[in-house]
Amino acid sequence: LPLAEKSLIARIRRMPGAGLSGAATSGLIRLGIGDDTAILRFPAGQEVLVTTDFSLEGVHFRRDWHSPESVGHRCLARGLSDIAAMGGEPEAAFLSLALPARLPQAWVDGFLRGLLALASQYGVTLAGGDTAQSPKERILADIVVLGSVLQGKAVRRSGAKPGDAIYVTGELGASALALKKLSLSLHSGKKLNPKKYPRHFFPEPRIAVGRYLLAHAMASAMIDLSDGLSTDLHHICEESRVGAHISAELIPRAEGATLQQALHGGEDYELLFTAPAKRKIPRSIAGVPVRRIGTVVQQKRGSRTSHHVMILDHGKAAELLPRGWEHFARESSKKPKSKSQASPK
Amino acid sequence: LPLAEKSLIARIRRMPGAGLSGAATSGLIRLGIGDDTAILRFPAGQEVLVTTDFSLEGVHFRRDWHSPESVGHRCLARGLSDIAAMGGEPEAAFLSLALPARLPQAWVDGFLRGLLALASQYGVTLAGGDTAQSPKERILADIVVLGSVLQGKAVRRSGAKPGDAIYVTGELGASALALKKLSLSLHSGKKLNPKKYPRHFFPEPRIAVGRYLLAHAMASAMIDLSDGLSTDLHHICEESRVGAHISAELIPRAEGATLQQALHGGEDYELLFTAPAKRKIPRSIAGVPVRRIGTVVQQKRGSRTSHHVMILDHGKAAELLPRGWEHFARESSKKPKSKSQASPK
Repeated sequence: LPLAEKSLIARIRRMPGAGLSGAATSGLIRLGIGDDTAILRFPAGQEVLVTTDFSLEGVHFRRDWHSPESVGHRCLARGLSDIAAMGGEPEAAFLSLALPARLPQAWVDGFLRGLLALASQYGVTLAGGDTAQSPKERILADIVVLGSVLQGKAVRRSGAKPGDAIYVTGELGASALALKKLSLSLHSGKKLNPKKYPRHFFPEPRIAVGRYLLAHAMASAMIDLSDGLSTDLHHICEESRVGAHISAELIPRAEGATLQQALHGGEDYELLFTAPAKRKIPRSIAGVPVRRIGTVVQQKRGSRTSHHVMILDHGKAAELLPRGWEHFARESSKKPKSKSQASPK
Repeated sequence: LPLAEKSLIARIRRMPGAGLSGAATSGLIRLGIGDDTAILRFPAGQEVLVTTDFSLEGVHFRRDWHSPESVGHRCLARGLSDIAAMGGEPEAAFLSLALPARLPQAWVDGFLRGLLALASQYGVTLAGGDTAQSPKERILADIVVLGSVLQGKAVRRSGAKPGDAIYVTGELGASALALKKLSLSLHSGKKLNPKKYPRHFFPEPRIAVGRYLLAHAMASAMIDLSDGLSTDLHHICEESRVGAHISAELIPRAEGATLQQALHGGEDYELLFTAPAKRKIPRSIAGVPVRRIGTVVQQKRGSRTSHHVMILDHGKAAELLPRGWEHFARESSKKPKSKSQASPK
C-alpha cells in the first residue's frame, strides 16, 4: 500500500510516547507534533545537547538482515548513545523519515514500535520530524535527539590529560561479529538468530553509565564507540591533543569476537572514557562492567597521525591506526560507513 | 572525486559561520562541530523551537534545475521559515548530508556556500550534523534548525478564533510558476534564468515579519506557506477547530502566476496568519506587504473536511480543498511531495 503521509503522521501521533499534539505537555515538551516547530522548555541551569544520525538502508541496515523493530531501535539508539557519551539525559527525539511508495504498512509499524519502545524506556518523547517519499525506493531515516545536562558539566572529547587512565564499558566486537555472521549467511543461506546477538540488533545506549560518570565528575573525556575503538580513541586523542597506549589483552572482547573486531568493529555503543589515574573507578557501573585498557600519553611528534596511538600485543608494540569499520554496504567506495560526523556524532 | 568524509567535515569546520570546534563559543553555542553532541545554552525565560526538514534530490530539488547554491539556500530556508512561523529567532542549524561517492567537490562547496550565506544572514551557526555516503547516488539532506522564543509567546497554529481576519505576506504562486517553467524547459530545451525567479531559487524566510508579529502580539495563529495556501490554511483550521472564508481577488499573486498556482503552489515561504479583526495590522512589515484575504468562521458540521474552507471567486462560493502541491518528482505516487510533517513542519 502506498503510504499516505497524513495517515502516517496520524498514526505516529496516536502511538504511546509520541505526539503530544495541541495543548498537551509532558516534561520539557511544551508542544509536540502538529505545528511548524516543536517547543521545549529547559529548566534554568541546564544546557541543551543536540545530535543527529542517519540510518540509511543499504548503508546502516539491510531489510533482509534487520527486522523493522531492530532498525527502529538502532536508529534511536545511535542518538541516545551520543547523549550518553556527554553524560547527558535524553529528552526528545525528532524523526525524519523518507519511505518508498510501496513499503508495507507493517514495516513502518514495526519500525515505529522498535523506536518508541526504546524511547519510552528512557523517557524520551518523539516530538516531531518530517516525512517524505523516498526518491529511490530506499528507507531513509535521520534521528535528532535533544538532551539536557547541567551547565558546563558535559563530558567532552577534549579533556583527556597525559597520565589519565583509559576505560571502556561492556564488551567489544559483538556487533562486528554479528555482521560477519550475517555476511556469511548470504552464502550459506543459514538464517541468523537475532536473539544470539542482542548487542547488534538491539544495542543498549549506556545512559546510566554516562550519567553516573558525570554525577561523580569521574571522566575527563568520553566518546561512544560507534565507529570502533581504534577510530574513536583517535577522536579523543585528536580533540584532547594527546596520545594513547593501550594493551590488547586488556580489551574486553565479546564471546567469539576477534581482536580485530574488538579494535575496529563499530556500533557496539559502549563508552570509551578517560579519568585521572588516581581516581578510583568502580569495576561495574549501573550493572555494566568497566575495564581499564590503557593510559593517555603526551602527543608525540612525527607519528603518521598527529596524535599517536600505540597498542601493546604479546609484548610487541605497534601503532594503532584508525581503521574504523568497513560496513556491509556494497557501494563502490571502500569506506561507505563514513560514520564520524559533520559533528555531533 | 570520492568525498573523504573527514575532509568534508574539516572543510565545513573551516567555513565561516560553521564549526566552532573545541572551546570556541558564539552566542548560545557552547560547543559546535567535533564532539558527540553540540552544546547550546539558552537564556532563562527562553523556550527552544525545533524543526527538521528533508531536502531530497528528485523530490525537493533536481540537480539539472537547481544550482548547488540554490539547493543549499533552499535546504536551510525551509527550516528558517518554520522558525519564522512561530515568531522565533533562529539560532543554530544541524545538517545531515548523504552524498553520492562520485559527486564533484565543486557541487558540495556550492551547496555549503549557499547554505552558509543564508545562515550568516540570520546569525545562524552550523553547529553539527552527520555525513554518510548515499546508498543510491542521490543527494540526501536533512536540516535541523533550533530557534529561541520568549516563554509561552510562540505563535501556534491553534489560536485562530471565529471573526479573526486572515492575512498573507508577500505574493503567492511565484515558486509554482518557476517550477512550471522549469518543467516546460524540459521539452523546449530553453534554459530558465534563475534570477527571474528569486522566490523559487532563493526564497527569503520571513523571520523579521514573524518576530514583529510576536513582539506586538498581533497574530492569533500562524503557519508558513510551504505546502500551499489551500493546504496550509486547512492546517490552521484543523488545529484551531475553525473554518475560513477567503476571497480569490484578495489573494496577492506573483506576476504571471495563476490563481491555482497561488492557491495550491507550495514553497513560497510566505507567512499566513490570523489576527483579531479590530486589531490594526500594518500594510507592510519589515518591507514585506501584508494583505488581508479573508475571515475565520465557526467550524461547520457536515463539510467534506472537518474544518470548512470556502473561497469566493467572482461572486461564486466554492469549497477550497487542501490540494497541496503536486511536486516535480516523477515517482509513482501522485503526491510525492508529502511535505506536511510528522510534526514540526
